Amino acid sequence: MKTQQLLNYERDRWIAGTDGLSELASAIDGSPVAIAGSGGLDFGAMLRHSREVGGPALRKMTFHERARMIKGLGLAIMARKEELYELSYQTGATRKDGWIDIEGGAGTLFSFSSKGRRELPDAHVLLDGALEPLSKRGSFVGQHIYTSLQGAAVHINAFNFPVWGMLEKLAPTFLAGVPAIVKPASATSYLTEAAFRVMIDSGLLPTGAVQLIVGGVGDLFDHLQGQDVVSFTGSASTAYKLRTHPVVMRESVKFIAEQDSLNASVLGPDAAPGTPEFDLFVREVAIEMTVKAGQKCTAIRRALAPAEYLDAVQAALGERLTQTKVGDPRSEDTRMGALVSASQCKDVREKIAELEAGGARIVAGDPNAESPVKGGSFLPPILLRSDDPWNNAAVHDVEAFGPVSTIMPYRDIDDAIALANRGKGSLALSLFTHSADSARDFVRGAASFHGRMLVIDRDNAKESTGHGSPLPVLVHGGPGRAGGSEEMGGVRGVKHYMQRTALQTSPAMIAAITGQYVAGAPKHVVDAHPFRQKMSELAIGDTWVTGSRTVTIEDIEHFANFTGDKFYAHMDEEAAKASPIFEGRVAHGYLILSFAAGLFVDPDPGPVLANTGLENLRFLTPLYPGDSMRVELTVKSKSLKSEETGVVRWAVEIFNQKDELVATYDLLTENVP
Amino acid sequence: MKTQQLLNYERDRWIAGTDGLSELASAIDGSPVAIAGSGGLDFGAMLRHSREVGGPALRKMTFHERARMIKGLGLAIMARKEELYELSYQTGATRKDGWIDIEGGAGTLFSFSSKGRRELPDAHVLLDGALEPLSKRGSFVGQHIYTSLQGAAVHINAFNFPVWGMLEKLAPTFLAGVPAIVKPASATSYLTEAAFRVMIDSGLLPTGAVQLIVGGVGDLFDHLQGQDVVSFTGSASTAYKLRTHPVVMRESVKFIAEQDSLNASVLGPDAAPGTPEFDLFVREVAIEMTVKAGQKCTAIRRALAPAEYLDAVQAALGERLTQTKVGDPRSEDTRMGALVSASQCKDVREKIAELEAGGARIVAGDPNAESPVKGGSFLPPILLRSDDPWNNAAVHDVEAFGPVSTIMPYRDIDDAIALANRGKGSLALSLFTHSADSARDFVRGAASFHGRMLVIDRDNAKESTGHGSPLPVLVHGGPGRAGGSEEMGGVRGVKHYMQRTALQTSPAMIAAITGQYVAGAPKHVVDAHPFRQKMSELAIGDTWVTGSRTVTIEDIEHFANFTGDKFYAHMDEEAAKASPIFEGRVAHGYLILSFAAGLFVDPDPGPVLANTGLENLRFLTPLYPGDSMRVELTVKSKSLKSEETGVVRWAVEIFNQKDELVATYDLLTENVP
Repeated sequence: MKTQQLLNYERDRWIAGTDGLSELASAIDGSPVAIAGSGGLDFGAMLRHSREVGGPALRKMTFHERARMIKGLGLAIMARKEELYELSYQTGATRKDGWIDIEGGAGTLFSFSSKGRRELPDAHVLLDGALEPLSKRGSFVGQHIYTSLQGAAVHINAFNFPVWGMLEKLAPTFLAGVPAIVKPASATSYLTEAAFRVMIDSGLLPTGAVQLIVGGVGDLFDHLQGQDVVSFTGSASTAYKLRTHPVVMRESVKFIAEQDSLNASVLGPDAAPGTPEFDLFVREVAIEMTVKAGQKCTAIRRALAPAEYLDAVQAALGERLTQTKVGDPRSEDTRMGALVSASQCKDVREKIAELEAGGARIVAGDPNAESPVKGGSFLPPILLRSDDPWNNAAVHDVEAFGPVSTIMPYRDIDDAIALANRGKGSLALSLFTHSADSARDFVRGAASFHGRMLVIDRDNAKESTGHGSPLPVLVHGGPGRAGGSEEMGGVRGVKHYMQRTALQTSPAMIAAITGQYVAGAPKHVVDAHPFRQKMSELAIGDTWVTGSRTVTIEDIEHFANFTGDKFYAHMDEEAAKASPIFEGRVAHGYLILSFAAGLFVDPDPGPVLANTGLENLRFLTPLYPGDSMRVELTVKSKSLKSEETGVVRWAVEIFNQKDELVATYDLLTENVP
Repeated sequence: MKTQQLLNYERDRWIAGTDGLSELASAIDGSPVAIAGSGGLDFGAMLRHSREVGGPALRKMTFHERARMIKGLGLAIMARKEELYELSYQTGATRKDGWIDIEGGAGTLFSFSSKGRRELPDAHVLLDGALEPLSKRGSFVGQHIYTSLQGAAVHINAFNFPVWGMLEKLAPTFLAGVPAIVKPASATSYLTEAAFRVMIDSGLLPTGAVQLIVGGVGDLFDHLQGQDVVSFTGSASTAYKLRTHPVVMRESVKFIAEQDSLNASVLGPDAAPGTPEFDLFVREVAIEMTVKAGQKCTAIRRALAPAEYLDAVQAALGERLTQTKVGDPRSEDTRMGALVSASQCKDVREKIAELEAGGARIVAGDPNAESPVKGGSFLPPILLRSDDPWNNAAVHDVEAFGPVSTIMPYRDIDDAIALANRGKGSLALSLFTHSADSARDFVRGAASFHGRMLVIDRDNAKESTGHGSPLPVLVHGGPGRAGGSEEMGGVRGVKHYMQRTALQTSPAMIAAITGQYVAGAPKHVVDAHPFRQKMSELAIGDTWVTGSRTVTIEDIEHFANFTGDKFYAHMDEEAAKASPIFEGRVAHGYLILSFAAGLFVDPDPGPVLANTGLENLRFLTPLYPGDSMRVELTVKSKSLKSEETGVVRWAVEIFNQKDELVATYDLLTENVP
């Protein structure tokens, strides 16, 4: 049977590479799976296609439209997941490993889609932070905005998660309105190509939104520009080579690097053998060593324990690891599959030797154990021990990217912090302790060296998502050795593909530019009550102006007696006058809010279903007995909570008879879309 | 008279450089002002001193303590500003130029101090965003936090703002709890040294918080580590040299670059001669060319106008510029002073020649005009014109860092966008238009290329802060050619000196680690009403538990009649039942809030002065007639509004008789500190 050639997707056409082809082998038995190469592609033209065709198409869509598209891509992946699982086995992954990659990838799309619809406006421009007052009369203000970068995102992915690795980068990129060029690691590119094909087949993506390179990137970097972004996942050495490219440096190309790092897990000083935390620690280290055969950028490479507990850790962990069944990932009783390739096995064995040369010794597992499948890239879990981690630089520096970890002792919490930070920056660190004091001291001492930290104890372990799992809603990345970057983290990750600009102008111009209402912008006073309109019928800036109502001293007393709120500022003229804030008795803030609702609410059933919340309320001018109040209710923004329910954010402004602002707030209502 | 030697401040000692000394000359007449050099300093030891002495001392302080320190530094500068003005003249700066540098620098300290006390907690850890639910039962949650980097900040400053340039970087750095090493540009380092000395003399800074290098940085970069930050302001070519340093790359050292860029100002298509916007544009271009003799990274280098108005622009601008009095900056009738040095004059003349070679021609000013003061570095404003900016690469690329600008035509708004973006990224762009449509189209098309954009018209010009003024509350920096970085922007700028970490654990651990209350964390139920305590006496997590109150149908009807809010969900059983949300008539949200206040408010005069606001209110469970409600009021955080008034943020949780959460919100009160 002729081995299938993978295709590149260049400028919306499937194209076979013409030279530089390499053969990709099964991790299970070394048999050929596919051939791939990117020779003959025009990389400069691909970048231009992204910028000139894909970018404009994506930028025409709103955040919500892009979010819906992303959800559709996730559904498409889920509908054809079994095809992907079949290929996934060939990478050495068990079904469980594949689940993280395939369904975890789709889940990441769903998470970003949901965040996009809930936390981003149905618009093209994202406001960042509040209006900054820059002038006395308010005609000139500042507003930070995010707009889509007008370049291409170049995604260079690692071999270990061929599907998730692609999707966790595509989700925030698409949500930001930026087209992408995906370049998977060769070893597992057949699985990435299959998942990529599912997305293209879905027909959901606009022309130019995405391209694929199965092979080298040729001269692509020579054509990068300042609006492009490179997002790289892989080894520190490859990252170094790419980020120092003269064009990247000269054009200030954004370079996001997520590098393998020497992640640590720490057994707390209180977590003696016999405590739940001790058992949880041993379990977690074993899991992280064996899931995906330890080929995870977040895997635990260094396991730190109080010196007096190190022997117990070694015994418990050694026992767990030797019981791990290693074998064909397709077998149901297999707990750990193969490494991705023979060369990866070789590399891991070399790194183990370096760790041994540095002073560590193997206490469980045999790097030269016989392979359970002929021709396969198998290696059992290997546990090392370093008794002098203070003078053993290798354990903090050399990463064996496989089922390999080193246990080591520490003296006290400060020593544990110093050792953990010796990794010079990591993606993930976990601490197993039931002591809040230890957690506080450790996290404060170590947090700036680690991108994600878990503190696990008996109370939260059952619901913990685990040391090694980056989550779409949390940032993934770390300082220093880990690359000094961030991915994901919900909307945080979207912003990496956008540019923040400080806009200085009038509120009217800000509203016109952003399509979102800001305080001070012109209002469009409507005749029909906006509570009678569906969300889709409401326009940003539509304003309902109410009649006015006078607040009397009787109202205040009545309200106080009814609610029980007899705060002196409402009830005692002398005491109120003596306060540094008030000139006499004032209306309750809640009375003002309640009367405001009485003024603006339209009572009959309609598309406004409920008042679900309120934000940014500020009381600005006291309302005294005899003052009157009126309300202006303005449509500020709209978003979807689900397909069936929308959320309208209303700017509420309450004025007194002198047109002074008494209070402002955002009112949230649940609406029929 | 012997020329004074400037001193370095190394490891808290004033030290004279021993070799590599250079003489610094007055911009006015070329006479010697000082000699300076950094030969003999131990740069590695300086970095260690920052990390091991300065960092720990600053990190012991809270954000508010650091903010107060920064304010003190600003006051110290203001108290001795006249000494600084005297030196400032020698740099070629007029009194007005010096005001931007000296008082603008102090103002930046005040702004950061104020932002720090208002927007940051009185704590060591900054929470970023909301809790992320990661589990069903809520025992495991996510919270992003920012902690201080544990390295040194190396500030490499430009010559043009010797005081402001130092202070705008120090303010966010100190606020973040990070020590700094300041390296001013040599030409004007005598002024930086004087301002630095004022700060040291103030006695406000802890040991190791700051050091000064007057001269080259030697092998300092070889000793950088992953927790260090380099913040550079200056030319693109120097930035390139520094950012490609192998240690910066290998250790992922954060590198903030703020580079001179080809900033543009655009006359809108509507802004014909005779309109206010036309006059405002001409005025702004002239100001930006002459303030600080055009030596501003934000100065307008390219002035774009509709082709049909270009002659009018040239006439009006040329007239204004030829009337600008150039001369000794100490003279009161001088409008523009000197460039910083003879070599800077030479460089500007060379760049003008390059612009001419590229196709531009001089239409006002003579680069070889005689100097108004013998030996001084003077140059009159030079206006160039390029009639073919589409085929003249130099005007979009060559920056003459002096009183030099090029006017050029554009065809329509898309053409203007394309030309503006040809600068490949800038710090600041201004658009003069009274058309909201033009503003929207232009900003959306160009924003991702520019770090700051102004839209100026007749309505906001009077209050505009101007094209060339970076403001402490707005980000300063830009993509691509401008360096791809950001500084300032209030708290945004502080975060560049901190690390974001995703923390995953129980709410109880998050509260213990951050010292701030989060939902789900343990509460400390107090016996004495917290309204009777001064802010300083309140502990985070202190909780007041109220009695309960039943809400009756009579209450609901009474409230509806009293306030006028007769929304059907409160008044009509059938209609309420038919709603997709409610099972029958429900209590008003505002009734619940009002009753809650009735339950928790302590009525007598005391340290709580007023309810000033409310945030993040969410109604979670409807309250039906017959249900009861009770409140838990917990101290969440405390901050200062001024020296005399504090703001307490209370977490309010309202429960029904089944202990279900009815509503949650943050209540803000103004308190006696």
